[in-house]
Amino acid sequence: MRFFSDNAAPVCDEVLAAIAAANRVDTAYDGDAISQRLDGVFSDLFETRVAALWISSGTAANALALAALVQPYQAVICHADAHIQNDECGAPEFYTGGAKLMLVGGQGAKIDRDGVTACLESVRADVHQMQPAAISITNATEYGCVYTPAEVAALGDLARERGLGLHMDGARFANAVATLGCRPADLTWRAGVDVLSFGFVKNGGLSAEALIFFRPELADATRYRRKRAGHLLSKGRYSAAQLLAMLDNDLWLRNARAANDAASRIAAAAPDRLIEPVEANEIFLRLTAGEAASLRAQGFDFYDWGPGAARLVTSWNQPEAEVAALAAALATL
Amino acid sequence: MRFFSDNAAPVCDEVLAAIAAANRVDTAYDGDAISQRLDGVFSDLFETRVAALWISSGTAANALALAALVQPYQAVICHADAHIQNDECGAPEFYTGGAKLMLVGGQGAKIDRDGVTACLESVRADVHQMQPAAISITNATEYGCVYTPAEVAALGDLARERGLGLHMDGARFANAVATLGCRPADLTWRAGVDVLSFGFVKNGGLSAEALIFFRPELADATRYRRKRAGHLLSKGRYSAAQLLAMLDNDLWLRNARAANDAASRIAAAAPDRLIEPVEANEIFLRLTAGEAASLRAQGFDFYDWGPGAARLVTSWNQPEAEVAALAAALATL
Amino acid sequence: MRFFSDNAAPVCDEVLAAIAAANRVDTAYDGDAISQRLDGVFSDLFETRVAALWISSGTAANALALAALVQPYQAVICHADAHIQNDECGAPEFYTGGAKLMLVGGQGAKIDRDGVTACLESVRADVHQMQPAAISITNATEYGCVYTPAEVAALGDLARERGLGLHMDGARFANAVATLGCRPADLTWRAGVDVLSFGFVKNGGLSAEALIFFRPELADATRYRRKRAGHLLSKGRYSAAQLLAMLDNDLWLRNARAANDAASRIAAAAPDRLIEPVEANEIFLRLTAGEAASLRAQGFDFYDWGPGAARLVTSWNQPEAEVAALAAALATL
Amino acid sequence: MRFFSDNAAPVCDEVLAAIAAANRVDTAYDGDAISQRLDGVFSDLFETRVAALWISSGTAANALALAALVQPYQAVICHADAHIQNDECGAPEFYTGGAKLMLVGGQGAKIDRDGVTACLESVRADVHQMQPAAISITNATEYGCVYTPAEVAALGDLARERGLGLHMDGARFANAVATLGCRPADLTWRAGVDVLSFGFVKNGGLSAEALIFFRPELADATRYRRKRAGHLLSKGRYSAAQLLAMLDNDLWLRNARAANDAASRIAAAAPDRLIEPVEANEIFLRLTAGEAASLRAQGFDFYDWGPGAARLVTSWNQPEAEVAALAAALATL
Repeated sequence: MRFFSDNAAPVCDEVLAAIAAANRVDTAYDGDAISQRLDGVFSDLFETRVAALWISSGTAANALALAALVQPYQAVICHADAHIQNDECGAPEFYTGGAKLMLVGGQGAKIDRDGVTACLESVRADVHQMQPAAISITNATEYGCVYTPAEVAALGDLARERGLGLHMDGARFANAVATLGCRPADLTWRAGVDVLSFGFVKNGGLSAEALIFFRPELADATRYRRKRAGHLLSKGRYSAAQLLAMLDNDLWLRNARAANDAASRIAAAAPDRLIEPVEANEIFLRLTAGEAASLRAQGFDFYDWGPGAARLVTSWNQPEAEVAALAAALATL
Repeated sequence: MRFFSDNAAPVCDEVLAAIAAANRVDTAYDGDAISQRLDGVFSDLFETRVAALWISSGTAANALALAALVQPYQAVICHADAHIQNDECGAPEFYTGGAKLMLVGGQGAKIDRDGVTACLESVRADVHQMQPAAISITNATEYGCVYTPAEVAALGDLARERGLGLHMDGARFANAVATLGCRPADLTWRAGVDVLSFGFVKNGGLSAEALIFFRPELADATRYRRKRAGHLLSKGRYSAAQLLAMLDNDLWLRNARAANDAASRIAAAAPDRLIEPVEANEIFLRLTAGEAASLRAQGFDFYDWGPGAARLVTSWNQPEAEVAALAAALATL
Repeated sequence: MRFFSDNAAPVCDEVLAAIAAANRVDTAYDGDAISQRLDGVFSDLFETRVAALWISSGTAANALALAALVQPYQAVICHADAHIQNDECGAPEFYTGGAKLMLVGGQGAKIDRDGVTACLESVRADVHQMQPAAISITNATEYGCVYTPAEVAALGDLARERGLGLHMDGARFANAVATLGCRPADLTWRAGVDVLSFGFVKNGGLSAEALIFFRPELADATRYRRKRAGHLLSKGRYSAAQLLAMLDNDLWLRNARAANDAASRIAAAAPDRLIEPVEANEIFLRLTAGEAASLRAQGFDFYDWGPGAARLVTSWNQPEAEVAALAAALATL
Repeated sequence: MRFFSDNAAPVCDEVLAAIAAANRVDTAYDGDAISQRLDGVFSDLFETRVAALWISSGTAANALALAALVQPYQAVICHADAHIQNDECGAPEFYTGGAKLMLVGGQGAKIDRDGVTACLESVRADVHQMQPAAISITNATEYGCVYTPAEVAALGDLARERGLGLHMDGARFANAVATLGCRPADLTWRAGVDVLSFGFVKNGGLSAEALIFFRPELADATRYRRKRAGHLLSKGRYSAAQLLAMLDNDLWLRNARAANDAASRIAAAAPDRLIEPVEANEIFLRLTAGEAASLRAQGFDFYDWGPGAARLVTSWNQPEAEVAALAAALATL
């Protein structure tokens, strides 16, 4: 019973079917008919004109987004627990040509206006210091928490006041939207987001994320950077097909809701153990080493999160029986 | 009738089947059971111990290979028509941190000992000039020609004498091996190749190339660079499965032979038009604008190659009827 | 009366005289007779064979040192207040190709074995995280404190155990040696330092720092990197001459002692105000806005260091009268 | 008798005197009174508002200029013999983050509209190829030839038509102006030049070149890049003082005329040997190995320029007797 990572989950049947359906001769790279539909489909979803690029990993999506927003001698403000800081082996630094991440704290891996403002004010406006040029937030966060549209907008307002770009790492954007029940537009460009890394792979996709530019002109340079990074796949139509399948009939939302629901049920079984509120599909629990061992002996797989804590992640296809079993096991620890 | 690019061809059924067969819960990134088999399977194929990494594009494979062989202040010697020089939007420069490509001429996009030696001797051994540290060749070349094992070995010997690394861009390595009928080992490490970008996507794959290190220790840094470039896919098992499917029962060779045979039959219909000998699956023809228009009017799609010339590429699944039709059309121009 | 920065001080007469004495035809770059003497002279000073390169700024010296010790996908552990983190506009990131600085706390801008060990242990040994490959310390520190040879050796031992390089930013190395009265060797390579940025410009020089490699083979790549960065000056002999002048008759030590003595006398006048012990030529004082204004009204120039604090720096040529005046003014605040 | 390089020449007395005169307490970096005068003085010289930055080498000046004009995924068109291509160890690639130099031929290391146009037209306007974004020319060229204002303007017009930046490497700009007798403005911004690396070190300076932005807003990012490269010297006032001394009373022009005159007299003694017309202070001669040996036996030092050729460079202070001796020796070979 796998609660280790949503990356370990299989791929949706709909996605595999779309790949199979795309399996015919077509133009290479992104000149094919399927890739050409992306701008339109995502513009509809977001209720504004966007540029949408497929990209094969969230790390690449994030790094390309940041490279579009900052110069090599500038900085990105993000949470100290951000994926871009801790889990991408320096992809932001690589793609930006050496920009710096400036770290801010905050509960649940969320940053807020006060934290960002303090960071901004700690930087002297001279050439000896790298000047912040963007803010990056993760929604849902690395601790399974969710920024509301109002919380994003507070940062978006600050970004506008200070001339900063705003990037959202949406590896679990679907989970955030599913929880909030909001319009995708309200959580992004209407709240000031310039670029969104819109994740699908953790949510039932195979190898395609979407990089969404709400200022479409920013995508022009990114198309070169994507090629230069080896991310312009020659058979990109199979990536585009995955994205269309995920958007079709709101599959992305249904999958995210399923994962969120599973997490909620598990959380409800162990409310006193929660380190963070469960607002998406990740559960951070206080768990002694003995308790962790006991759960593992019962067949549950998960990630240790330092001493006395564990991370459990539910997937879009988490079997109901596994969820129930885990809830029961937690309740009887 | 599509002779534009082998990138436009569909994906083999065996590859799609392997993806479907991999569709279950497994470890993320490259810790899964399928990815773990790659070193062994490719070591068997090459009759020596190799490190084998999946990677989603040939551009990324090439750039990672070069980054493993040269420092930012060093240079790579390659042909002026090399893909790494002309068609990767500076991926080698990006991944190496700014190394320079030093260009050498040669018929059929092939370089030889004399050309490389002349290049080496044009460089002063002082800190004002970037010092060559690697040679990169493409086999089959960008002009559809093939280096024999002896030709590679001549460059391999030179590389060893001068302390240079030797990289082979094998986007169409399968086509070269199919033509030569040699052992893969003879065309690579036994001839001095250190790193091979082993292409599968043009040959029926979907999104997985193999990066083969014949000096396995070179792969250690590359694993970090791959992650840092956003190329460590979270669901890497689907990439690994593609590679295993291609190796299974020599599918890679059968596909390449099919494409090569189609090219040979077309070439035989227009021997006087050939700009280069047809040794793989690419045909470069002299063709007036009028002739090109005539062919297109008959439904053949292909790439103009400057004034008076055209490039036609056959694919692993090129229908026999299309091949016959094109041969006939060329014969009657 | 200038206590703003030792960078504002003039150049020693001996240094200007050496520049004038070098003013004749000689070989360009670093092939001249004066530059050729540097390895020998610094090897004598450090009692071991070193490679010594002139370089025109401390920022460049630090960045080249770090580039010699870490790969682009690795990290440097340093203090959160380190100059390389806060005052070099990302030079380390630029020269290393995007390595990350990992920040550790510690009183007086000093780090210790415990802090570095905790940082090391926070990093998972997988490709998702940048792996530390070097430690960088500043001696004297950004807060005017000094690491003793034993303190450096504790870090040097740790570096050896963990396979890390050890860099010392010695922008005020002279001040540290002057305070400690130790042999330069004891504070550097005998304590495990691999590369030292040995500063002279703050200490009476004009435009030459020395980059000292205690593992001379590390300098080979650096010579290329120095050229590539535009730091191989064509008239390097005037840089080399500055360094020789500073070493001659221990001018570097005499100048540093003078600056340190001035700082000590000022500190002694306001012992209760000291934020850090004064161990070099910098004084960090608690000072209200009113007190600061009062001092400025009396003609003293210095740097505000956040609310309620100030930084004062003494120079090699600080006039005795200015020191006495400042001491008196502080005593009567 | 030294004809090896103008880099080997000594420093002008006026420059040394200016350094000595600057030797007092002042603000660090470029906040001092002398540095603050540069914009004004160079704006006067060029008859337009410019931003002028001191920088300690021509390599750094060139690389910073190019980084201001091109993105990492773009290209610079230059001559195959350009200094930026052959003698800067990849500084342009380093500073730009991996841009490519695209090489054009042309007599005397000069490029022209036809050559640049052909290069531009060889590039497909797609993301697979790096798109040219700037032209860089050297004046006087690496072969001692001079572009006239009209020749520069022809390239400047092309640059404007195509949306390219235009950089001039003026390591020997003074020599070009001295030869042409034109206004500096006519050879630069009036002819379309955006950024000029204005060399002084070969012409009697010590360690300061000027980087001149005719579009001053381009300098803003460059100030960060200069710091990040370790080229913002803490005692920059001594660099600024050198530049002011060189401009004072047209010292730069007088020095250049002296060097040019020496070269002309030598050239006049061996008109049949000239490989290129002598339009500045460099002389490229046909010279057999025996003749070269004979000259060296007579005490003349110079650079071999491949088999059968030699490069001789005259300096601002080349003694009249040496010039006469060399002219006589050449005449009697």
